[in-house]
Amino acid sequence: MIKDLQNILSRSAKSAKKSAIRELLKLTQRPEIISFAGGLPAPESFPLEILKKLSVEVLEKEGTAACQYSMTEGDNGLRKALIEKYRKDEGLELAMENIIITTSSQQALDFLGRVLVDPGDAVVCGLPTYLGGLQAFAAYGAEMHGIKLDDKGMRADLLKAKLEELKKAGKKPKFIYTVPDFQNPAGITMPESRRKEILALAHEYDVLVVEDSPYRELRFEGKNPPMLYKLDGKEQVVVLGTFSKIFVPGFRIGWIIGNKDLLDKFVTVKQAADLCTSSFVQKIGALYLNQGHFDANLQRVIAMYREKRDAMLAALKEHMPKGVSWTCPEGGLFLFVTLPDGMDAEKLFPKAIEKNVAYVLGSVFHCDGSGRDTMRLNFSFAPKEKNIEGIRRLAEVIKEAMKG
Amino acid sequence: MIKDLQNILSRSAKSAKKSAIRELLKLTQRPEIISFAGGLPAPESFPLEILKKLSVEVLEKEGTAACQYSMTEGDNGLRKALIEKYRKDEGLELAMENIIITTSSQQALDFLGRVLVDPGDAVVCGLPTYLGGLQAFAAYGAEMHGIKLDDKGMRADLLKAKLEELKKAGKKPKFIYTVPDFQNPAGITMPESRRKEILALAHEYDVLVVEDSPYRELRFEGKNPPMLYKLDGKEQVVVLGTFSKIFVPGFRIGWIIGNKDLLDKFVTVKQAADLCTSSFVQKIGALYLNQGHFDANLQRVIAMYREKRDAMLAALKEHMPKGVSWTCPEGGLFLFVTLPDGMDAEKLFPKAIEKNVAYVLGSVFHCDGSGRDTMRLNFSFAPKEKNIEGIRRLAEVIKEAMKG
Repeated sequence: MIKDLQNILSRSAKSAKKSAIRELLKLTQRPEIISFAGGLPAPESFPLEILKKLSVEVLEKEGTAACQYSMTEGDNGLRKALIEKYRKDEGLELAMENIIITTSSQQALDFLGRVLVDPGDAVVCGLPTYLGGLQAFAAYGAEMHGIKLDDKGMRADLLKAKLEELKKAGKKPKFIYTVPDFQNPAGITMPESRRKEILALAHEYDVLVVEDSPYRELRFEGKNPPMLYKLDGKEQVVVLGTFSKIFVPGFRIGWIIGNKDLLDKFVTVKQAADLCTSSFVQKIGALYLNQGHFDANLQRVIAMYREKRDAMLAALKEHMPKGVSWTCPEGGLFLFVTLPDGMDAEKLFPKAIEKNVAYVLGSVFHCDGSGRDTMRLNFSFAPKEKNIEGIRRLAEVIKEAMKG
Repeated sequence: MIKDLQNILSRSAKSAKKSAIRELLKLTQRPEIISFAGGLPAPESFPLEILKKLSVEVLEKEGTAACQYSMTEGDNGLRKALIEKYRKDEGLELAMENIIITTSSQQALDFLGRVLVDPGDAVVCGLPTYLGGLQAFAAYGAEMHGIKLDDKGMRADLLKAKLEELKKAGKKPKFIYTVPDFQNPAGITMPESRRKEILALAHEYDVLVVEDSPYRELRFEGKNPPMLYKLDGKEQVVVLGTFSKIFVPGFRIGWIIGNKDLLDKFVTVKQAADLCTSSFVQKIGALYLNQGHFDANLQRVIAMYREKRDAMLAALKEHMPKGVSWTCPEGGLFLFVTLPDGMDAEKLFPKAIEKNVAYVLGSVFHCDGSGRDTMRLNFSFAPKEKNIEGIRRLAEVIKEAMKG
């Protein structure tokens, strides 16, 4: 090996850190641990029998194309199927040029950084917000500005103050990064009124809005507010979608919806990043949508996750001591816990591992290092009974820490 | 949409250019055109029946894991199967920590730029060399230094002079990028002696060597010289492998072999780029190797491509006028044509399209803009008869241009 590897690394590689969550997950993979730390779909959510049928069907009907390179923009069949899905579910009228396929929405987050961010550029996000976004933007040197959430999501008053402050400093943020539905990690959904306030500010300050939307389909009750993209209607919003939480993460299929001139830049970047996404899995995804399996399986998954959420909320109510609070998400995969005054989720972590229960530190979702008294809990992955037992253990850990 | 999109782009996105080849390919997709421009495997090379069987088998035996996220490093089953392949075929003794899976070798090229290159850093490559590499490194601002090839590949005397020149200028190249087997675009293979010369220089100047190896398995006659990685034996070589030319590009599976500390950096970067490669296709790939289908199908593909190469060489000999020369590759997908003195492949291109035949301009593979009198021809994709007819048409175009 060459003498000094560290010396030949690029600046970004020198400063790159491994994902705290991915590294934590390794710690928590001992079978005796009940882990709330991941963000995985339930193993029983995967439609294995249907996938067997569709894999064979794709190879029989379009085998050669499924094995060959695809267009960089994505498989036309899948793009059309997604356009139809958004027409039916969201009332969007998308053209082919408004949607491209990515290798997971993590790739879309990476491309946002690559296409829009130079070192020192401002990006506005929630406080807390999705760690995968924070890391993708940080890799390009983004200066993250966090806006606190209330129970309606990103606070519009604080967003306005931040945009004004940046404007006075001669800075225009490259985009406002939002997860409006069942936010990761907070589990909060923006109502229509708040969405309109955020969009009004985006127009006033001429800033792009990113609507990261991996969980929107997973609503357990009530009705989704309109998408930011739909409310805006002016292509000032870029939507990131993915099959990872609503179908199968193992396919690594995501998509970007937006203005065609902007998408054109993403396509150029994708040519250098991986040329195209797997044709085979894209074609299976298209059949899965077109044959109605997507909607049918989704209903099954929603019922499953609703039950898991309800069980976890009931367990929290039963076991947690006074002073602990949590969000009650209407959908998605996560809820967010706030510990009693002054308690530190990081200090608590080794004690939790001792009692064979794990979570993600809330602080990793806060770009300013705050949120030390918070933790994210996933309820989609483990069986209901394990989730209940895990909450009981976690409550014990917290009670013991309260005693001092 | 925001008022001035151009204004919010990152510096790299502002300067990014679409792949000349991908754009050309769009032009050449009219059915009447015989195109030598792509680099696609033959449609009849894909083992569709086996893939049907293996897809079902994966979903039956490991369905849940195939649908779930995989480790960022790649599916352990596939990594083990590849280690076994390199042990058997190349006599390499790799540990798990010496190999990671990427989403195609284009992603590996991108990661090389991301992990090692800052704007202005020197990278040494062949003159000509693979365009996908040039573009990936250019995206990170690499300053490319091309070394002319002779019939043994990259010239060692010129490489030494370049390394010395850079050293005097206080610059150490981040790596030497090579395609030692059936080079793209030139079709040239480095004999063992040249490999040793290149490695000796890499050690003398303490520079990393990249061995990009997508075609090595596609040898039509004779024996492969040892891999650079094997000859080196000191992990100063990084190998890029891929299924794209020897199995199916539609899976987007590649791999990187190298020193574990360096691979660790690639893993960190992959977490932000796409988290992991599709578990489903990785598991199919592992079964394909483990059950012996890989070797069996490869023999069939080699026979097929050998016949296509022979037919194209015979057609060139029959139809091309005096003054045109070409390489005679012992394997791979491409051969490289040099036109008579002063003829410009770019000027010839519209005339070729008029006669319904297409190629790639050799100049796009030259980082210094030279090679205007060259063109790359692919012989793997089209049926033999079309290749012969295409060469007849191309010879006509050249003859007419020679007349003036």
